[in-house]
Amino acid sequence: MSNPILLAPGPVQLHPEVQKILSQPMIHHRTPEFDSILKRVLENLKFLFQTNSHVYIHSSTGSGGMESLLVNTLSPKDRVLAIVSGKFGERWAEIATIYGAHVDRLNVPWGDSINPGQVEDYLNQHPDTKIVLCQACETSTATTHPIRQLGEIIAKTQALFLVDGITAVGAYPLQMDAFLIDGLVAGSQKGIMLPTGLSFVGLSAKTEKVMEKATTPRYYFDLSKEKKANQNGETFFSSSVSLIKALDFILLLLKTHGLEKHFADVKRRADFTRIMNAKLGLKLFSKSPSDSVTALLLPSTIDGAKFRTYLEDKYSVTVMGGQDQLKGKIIRIGHMGFILDDHLIETQFRLALALKDFNLLKDLDVNSYVNDCRKWLKDNPR
Amino acid sequence: MSNPILLAPGPVQLHPEVQKILSQPMIHHRTPEFDSILKRVLENLKFLFQTNSHVYIHSSTGSGGMESLLVNTLSPKDRVLAIVSGKFGERWAEIATIYGAHVDRLNVPWGDSINPGQVEDYLNQHPDTKIVLCQACETSTATTHPIRQLGEIIAKTQALFLVDGITAVGAYPLQMDAFLIDGLVAGSQKGIMLPTGLSFVGLSAKTEKVMEKATTPRYYFDLSKEKKANQNGETFFSSSVSLIKALDFILLLLKTHGLEKHFADVKRRADFTRIMNAKLGLKLFSKSPSDSVTALLLPSTIDGAKFRTYLEDKYSVTVMGGQDQLKGKIIRIGHMGFILDDHLIETQFRLALALKDFNLLKDLDVNSYVNDCRKWLKDNPR
Repeated sequence: MSNPILLAPGPVQLHPEVQKILSQPMIHHRTPEFDSILKRVLENLKFLFQTNSHVYIHSSTGSGGMESLLVNTLSPKDRVLAIVSGKFGERWAEIATIYGAHVDRLNVPWGDSINPGQVEDYLNQHPDTKIVLCQACETSTATTHPIRQLGEIIAKTQALFLVDGITAVGAYPLQMDAFLIDGLVAGSQKGIMLPTGLSFVGLSAKTEKVMEKATTPRYYFDLSKEKKANQNGETFFSSSVSLIKALDFILLLLKTHGLEKHFADVKRRADFTRIMNAKLGLKLFSKSPSDSVTALLLPSTIDGAKFRTYLEDKYSVTVMGGQDQLKGKIIRIGHMGFILDDHLIETQFRLALALKDFNLLKDLDVNSYVNDCRKWLKDNPR
Repeated sequence: MSNPILLAPGPVQLHPEVQKILSQPMIHHRTPEFDSILKRVLENLKFLFQTNSHVYIHSSTGSGGMESLLVNTLSPKDRVLAIVSGKFGERWAEIATIYGAHVDRLNVPWGDSINPGQVEDYLNQHPDTKIVLCQACETSTATTHPIRQLGEIIAKTQALFLVDGITAVGAYPLQMDAFLIDGLVAGSQKGIMLPTGLSFVGLSAKTEKVMEKATTPRYYFDLSKEKKANQNGETFFSSSVSLIKALDFILLLLKTHGLEKHFADVKRRADFTRIMNAKLGLKLFSKSPSDSVTALLLPSTIDGAKFRTYLEDKYSVTVMGGQDQLKGKIIRIGHMGFILDDHLIETQFRLALALKDFNLLKDLDVNSYVNDCRKWLKDNPR
């Protein structure tokens, strides 16, 4: 099978214009040309985060941004409530523990969404809570949490509501200010459709105040240094020039296209993926599925890890498998990035062939299935 | 003046093949294709560092790598000797202080090189010293330090010798094992000729042992996590796929070309720059000039910051100015990256014109000067 397709929950397929920008000659980060790009990017990041607050850029992966939110707000022994519903909830709880927080975990079964009442109860019982951690979308289970409701509950307390929007920002509505989020982190290789290498962190006014007093030692992720540099039109460390130039393009694209329309495009891909895979007998894993990525349960009769690799090796379709307790049980198909209808149809076509190769779907007529795929997309235009 | 020239001490001009690689479609970091690239890169980084030890990759700027070396080896209250000879020496001392070390600064006048005897005396007086910090090349002053001699002195003690090779690795000989370096950090956008976004950290066996007991909290820069992931053929966090693919090309290029020959090329550019600028009346600032970057004193009669900007605006040549106490006094011309002889000649040509525009070099015949430049390069071939 010829042209490869990458539909993972990050990294994602790049827009041709992004590829072009990444191949341009290097410019220095202390030049008027870059200054004007950085200025526009910092302004447009606010638009992306739907906030009036400053949004910071780190040269790091998304996990660096998660660490940044914590080390800038934590003081050792602070009480932290970590909502843990998958691998990345685990990670954030672990980072907070390492930096000396008193961490209570609110464990949610993988694939389930948190019940906001549980968080309310906890905060009532523990009014000394300083931070609540939650994924907007838990990437490992493709599950969303009710961020807006949680925001309303947490805003009534002294606690900061820190949200991991790495597989959400740029993919579906997550309005930092309207949802009363105090700290929001995003990553470049997901909804922002760039290569890996940048993370973004937005802080509410409530958070900026806590930051001034937080005693966790920090340097690389110290946002007060970065803020001063940004105010002078610079980044504190060397800027990741190539990625920030490409980011400038993406943010202008989203502004021109409109966030609502863009989110509708991503949701359409998610809807297509769910409906068309149901026809292949693949059921949704998550009880609260995300529009950024879909997790599908594989038939228990096949070795899921083997199947994923087979799909990649034989049919050049890269989707992700399950992690930790979901290893071999699910595949995760991403809906972010530069995805054309042809990519969607081809993916379902090759997926159907692969399932047939595994002795499933014996009665499926692949041609008619592909026609169904094409028809759905035609009937549900962008 | 048409085509822009970037001769800064990082970021640097990119090899055309690197530009091409950066524009390729995205691939996932959990694919056989990337696995084989990462494996080769991790092996070839040892060659670049001239070490038998493992070299780690961070998605961060060079400063992130500096922080990594410290947080992986420090325990609070450890005694640290910081050799401070410029802005980046200051930075490393500051990071160590923030992470709770007892830091003694050995201040060296900017532009001077450290006298190893001073370090020996300090270590004799303070046998409890745990870490010595030094720049191989202090980028802000374009000055090298005698790393090999320092390595011999420090190796006799319990202290770890941590070296900032950000403006050295890939530019001139800095052999981690032979020079008895315990921790060496490099950055992608300097001698390694890539965009900003990766740092590299090599640790000696002595350091790996200290790391096991170091109590500074760390997560994003925790090398023990990264080591386990690398042993499984992965990076712990999402890999910066595009940059690592380009790194693979650069490392293969250096291996094919040979480090010695490559270093000779860089040195030839440094020699050319010094000799040809002396003819323009621009003297060397540093008493121990680096082959990676040259700092030139500007005539005190002109406003140096204005001159640098003028050279950029009018003649499209980007070099760097001085930082902190050297602001407006020097320009720094980088010798790293993809630099052809034409770039060298053009830079000198435009520099001469700019100086003339500032009412200097009234008697200089620019045409004959450019001929001298061309002749030098012809007489001193690669």
